[in-house]
Amino acid sequence: MIAAEVEQDLAQLAHAGQVAELQERLQRIHPADVAEAVIDLPGQEEALVFRALPKEKAGLVFAYLPAPHQEALVKALSAEEVRNAVAGMAPDDRARLLEEMPAEVAKRLMETLGPEELEKSRALLGYPENTAGRYMTPNYASIAPEMTAEQALRHIRSTGRGKETLNVVYIVDREGYLVEDVRLGALVLADPATPVTQIPDPGLICLPVHADRAEVLREFEKYDRVALPVVDDNRRMLGIITMDDVLDMAEQTATEEFQKMGGTEALDAPYNEVGFWAMVRKRGGWLSALFLGEMLTATAMGYYEREIERAVVLALFVPLIISSGGNSGSQATSLIIRALALKELRLKDWWRVMGREVGAGLTLGVLLGAIGFLRIILWQHLHWKDYGPHYLLVALTVWASLVGVVTFGTLAGSMLPFLLRRIGFDPATSSAPFVATLVDVTGLVIYFTVGSIILRGALL
Amino acid sequence: MIAAEVEQDLAQLAHAGQVAELQERLQRIHPADVAEAVIDLPGQEEALVFRALPKEKAGLVFAYLPAPHQEALVKALSAEEVRNAVAGMAPDDRARLLEEMPAEVAKRLMETLGPEELEKSRALLGYPENTAGRYMTPNYASIAPEMTAEQALRHIRSTGRGKETLNVVYIVDREGYLVEDVRLGALVLADPATPVTQIPDPGLICLPVHADRAEVLREFEKYDRVALPVVDDNRRMLGIITMDDVLDMAEQTATEEFQKMGGTEALDAPYNEVGFWAMVRKRGGWLSALFLGEMLTATAMGYYEREIERAVVLALFVPLIISSGGNSGSQATSLIIRALALKELRLKDWWRVMGREVGAGLTLGVLLGAIGFLRIILWQHLHWKDYGPHYLLVALTVWASLVGVVTFGTLAGSMLPFLLRRIGFDPATSSAPFVATLVDVTGLVIYFTVGSIILRGALL
Repeated sequence: MIAAEVEQDLAQLAHAGQVAELQERLQRIHPADVAEAVIDLPGQEEALVFRALPKEKAGLVFAYLPAPHQEALVKALSAEEVRNAVAGMAPDDRARLLEEMPAEVAKRLMETLGPEELEKSRALLGYPENTAGRYMTPNYASIAPEMTAEQALRHIRSTGRGKETLNVVYIVDREGYLVEDVRLGALVLADPATPVTQIPDPGLICLPVHADRAEVLREFEKYDRVALPVVDDNRRMLGIITMDDVLDMAEQTATEEFQKMGGTEALDAPYNEVGFWAMVRKRGGWLSALFLGEMLTATAMGYYEREIERAVVLALFVPLIISSGGNSGSQATSLIIRALALKELRLKDWWRVMGREVGAGLTLGVLLGAIGFLRIILWQHLHWKDYGPHYLLVALTVWASLVGVVTFGTLAGSMLPFLLRRIGFDPATSSAPFVATLVDVTGLVIYFTVGSIILRGALL
Repeated sequence: MIAAEVEQDLAQLAHAGQVAELQERLQRIHPADVAEAVIDLPGQEEALVFRALPKEKAGLVFAYLPAPHQEALVKALSAEEVRNAVAGMAPDDRARLLEEMPAEVAKRLMETLGPEELEKSRALLGYPENTAGRYMTPNYASIAPEMTAEQALRHIRSTGRGKETLNVVYIVDREGYLVEDVRLGALVLADPATPVTQIPDPGLICLPVHADRAEVLREFEKYDRVALPVVDDNRRMLGIITMDDVLDMAEQTATEEFQKMGGTEALDAPYNEVGFWAMVRKRGGWLSALFLGEMLTATAMGYYEREIERAVVLALFVPLIISSGGNSGSQATSLIIRALALKELRLKDWWRVMGREVGAGLTLGVLLGAIGFLRIILWQHLHWKDYGPHYLLVALTVWASLVGVVTFGTLAGSMLPFLLRRIGFDPATSSAPFVATLVDVTGLVIYFTVGSIILRGALL
């Protein structure tokens, strides 16, 4: 909300070299807002503002910046300044930073890290992408199983500074096994003499270190926690994932679903940061596949070439008919994909959904058919267009075809996600454009079949 | 993960009437898992399992159930049992429950609530839907500004039980104004004699009570908090919103975007719970609007009727050409909509994006054009189809049209979201199907114009 004015102020102060005032001003602004303001400044002034930040705050601001800005800053700042900024970042943010940077910049970054930080980053980096291991931070607060509530609080007081969160602390035994998690609130509320293992808790939920992003997201959604522990196969404590990372995950998952729905491979990076050719490759792959599918429409049209020759009027409504099928199919498929993703629908519901969608398809088909029918009659009577002496039969053909095409589109659109899920694919994978292709070809067949029945003896 | 076996066990125990064992078994299962298992049981056994739950747990399980199950249970259980279940829910969950139930059931529910709970629910219900006021809970922990850290902890110990969260506590003065928020962790770490107002804090962020869902989501994403306070225009403290509600919000927002992208009004409720006619109305509205737009294709085709009559071969590639334009447009539009939603792109970037997308469109157009060109040559030479003596010119027409149509589709698809945002609309609003309609009509014009130039003297 305040970004625009902040940005102007900062730019002016940086430009005028008023470092003291700049520092004073920066003190009072939240790191997220500083980052947002800094992004829009020219490169020179970006580094200036950054240098004016107090040490601890610089790291926070740095973590909020998009990767290309981080990269530019790493190049513009001295090793000392970079070290301060990077040391102020949480280990999980740092791991992702290292991964996103080009190799030489990553090397320069790692050189500035102390051995301990580096080891933490490396440990995090050993796990495959998009698994719990990559999102976790080893920076959690732990207590011993034999402590009382009072001892635990004293222990947290002496060791808790700088931890990723204190909202939940973890009871870890001497061998490193996770015993239980305890909310700090429950610890504070408990009688001081209560053993920590007896403090009431909603139950321990652990994330296996190899759990993928969807699984992590699901567990957080299901159990409403602010942090969950990550453990290895033997339930040894490795780290924690906090809710703020999960919100980012949810966003990333939604982006991927959305892009797949639009008929492109997930870009896996912000639009701005994907190279031109990488983007063209990801889009071109799907587009070519769909094009190959759509080539069947040319085959189908070729099959009806003689009908078109005799009744050119039929060709006029081809785009209208097939796009109606495509639109109704993409509606149905997007509703079902999302309902499956949110588990509002399960695989076994397909039969019930089919009945419902056939009903919806018929109703919508009759509606669109009526509009199409009236359009032809109206144009004919207003003399805007002459569809020939058999215009009523043409209108009837369009009406009946629309009923058939919209019903089929709706049915195909709603059943394809179930089918994809059934054979083990992600229903989101390009369902919508595939439905469109399928429906286009079938739509042509329906249209010309209906036409050849209704118009036989009249036009054909 | 354990739902399937749990479900079977519970069903068997409920069926056999082994209440004691059932109770024993339920003790050890998380409320979210009980809810998931209960959903799939027949109605009779659902109530049986529910009755076997201990009082406090019943409320938690109840909150996890989808609305129709809650409704069925309210009807099946006694007033006493309902009161126990509802009293165990958090006020914000309860407000949403009251809103989702049909009026008679809601009335029955409210009768079972004590006057204090009812007032809380009513207060929450006074704010418009989808605003901060509707998501907040008044059930937060507060401390006074004159307290020290030690006094604050003692105060929390005596008043904190049953609060929605203790992770953040709020310094509220005697007049009810919000002074500051303090993380419980910081309070525990602070020297006991420190005044609470001097405890280091990342800065107070408040949500205005009328902030809409998108704004709430944005603030949580930006500031990485587990809870944010909701205040009125005078910064008087009204309640808090916790992170678990925000994850639901993010999901709901993604669903709406996804459904709009599929060319339907947002359903605003799970697929299963929307009535048949309500759904048909929401889908029929958009479908009719798009149909009216697509009727322009019939007009455009009518305009080229003579060309089609003379060169029927042109009609064969109409669906292929326009669908390629539509697919490339929907790719571009989905990428840009999402990038705008995530603020990876801003309005002022339109110029840069345009350059990039024209480049991508040309490249993709040349690629698809080449495939189309080869398809015609190949079919001709393999004698699978005879495109006449001028087949090379036809292939050239298809190639050039695809370059033009795909470039235009990509350009229109990427610019429409900017345009919609610029004139104050939500870019997600049905951009993709609108792009398809726009591109279909323009694609026809491009195709027949290119055809009449290339085929002049040969076929036309």
